[in-house]
Amino acid sequence: MGAEPKRTEEWADVTPDAARRLVTAAVAAFAERGYHATTTRDIAGRAGMSPAALYIHYRTKEDLLYRISIVGHRAALDLLRRARRPGTDPATRLADAVRAFVRWHAEHHTTARVVQYELGALGEEHYAEIVGLRRETDAEIRAVIEDGVASGDFAVPDVPGTTVAVLSLCIDVARWFNAEGKRTPDEVGELYAGLVLRMVGHRAP
Amino acid sequence: MGAEPKRTEEWADVTPDAARRLVTAAVAAFAERGYHATTTRDIAGRAGMSPAALYIHYRTKEDLLYRISIVGHRAALDLLRRARRPGTDPATRLADAVRAFVRWHAEHHTTARVVQYELGALGEEHYAEIVGLRRETDAEIRAVIEDGVASGDFAVPDVPGTTVAVLSLCIDVARWFNAEGKRTPDEVGELYAGLVLRMVGHRAP
Repeated sequence: MGAEPKRTEEWADVTPDAARRLVTAAVAAFAERGYHATTTRDIAGRAGMSPAALYIHYRTKEDLLYRISIVGHRAALDLLRRARRPGTDPATRLADAVRAFVRWHAEHHTTARVVQYELGALGEEHYAEIVGLRRETDAEIRAVIEDGVASGDFAVPDVPGTTVAVLSLCIDVARWFNAEGKRTPDEVGELYAGLVLRMVGHRAP
Repeated sequence: MGAEPKRTEEWADVTPDAARRLVTAAVAAFAERGYHATTTRDIAGRAGMSPAALYIHYRTKEDLLYRISIVGHRAALDLLRRARRPGTDPATRLADAVRAFVRWHAEHHTTARVVQYELGALGEEHYAEIVGLRRETDAEIRAVIEDGVASGDFAVPDVPGTTVAVLSLCIDVARWFNAEGKRTPDEVGELYAGLVLRMVGHRAP
């Protein structure tokens, strides 16, 4: 469970190897100094490449940020979709979704911070595409909460507001999570699954 | 309830007027481009002043960030302390604290984002001072939760973890809150007060 295997997994779909190294370098640079204070030269240097070599893979710095945002948002959305197993009750599905979403934001907190805090630096079309993925993420959580309300398992006076709060609670783990801290990503996921079931008024049978 | 009166109030204690204008300009610049991509020249320009005039009030760019962080953290802490009225039950106090804390993070979302996301840019001593204020903020919420557990009003299996979650939920309002959105700061505060009472296992009498 070291950092390296996770990071490899995080960007496994980015090929070839040079493109993946550039993404990893860009995440580190953006996290350290912010998007606007980072140059493509900084990123290429961190990846041990020339600025010219960077442009073979990414047209612009914004292109790199877009790629990072797409991979990050898709990974988080896929996790939520995998929690949608048929035949399970809404409470189990919501708890599984929260566990997985929290674990992702804790393990990949550096990527998650870049993705969340630098949204405004994306170009108009790229921004619109990311907003679309965020709406799908929102819809996944909302659907589970609605199922639980329909089945009588949950009591939620304000479903859209509660959906925003649940997602916000999980996403903000990326801000405060400390890999050297007292709690593991799994422990935070477990705590949060319980808190979210309380937020939706679930009563354990 | 326009933006201007609020902003004046936010920095009312920063004097003289030129120092206040510089703080306002710095918050806007840091929020737009990040701390590291902003120069003191940018900040002075936004405030309609010369770079030399800036140095009369702040020795460095870091000094400005520190001042913004101190004012922001103290304002949030003061709000929580004001909610600690004697003679009120823990549920009322916790709900009041959440309402006030959420409203502050919604109304001052630009300042709150700068304060939260640029912590790492503070010098060592300044960082330590801010961490101290954050511990005091944490202690305010934890004390109310502990009071509620002691009185039997709340049922909380993990008080430190739940304290982190409650603060995180409120702070993250600054990330997603949109002044042009559907909900006012007061409405989000009301929704969140209810959600937090559920998180601490409060049952309405």
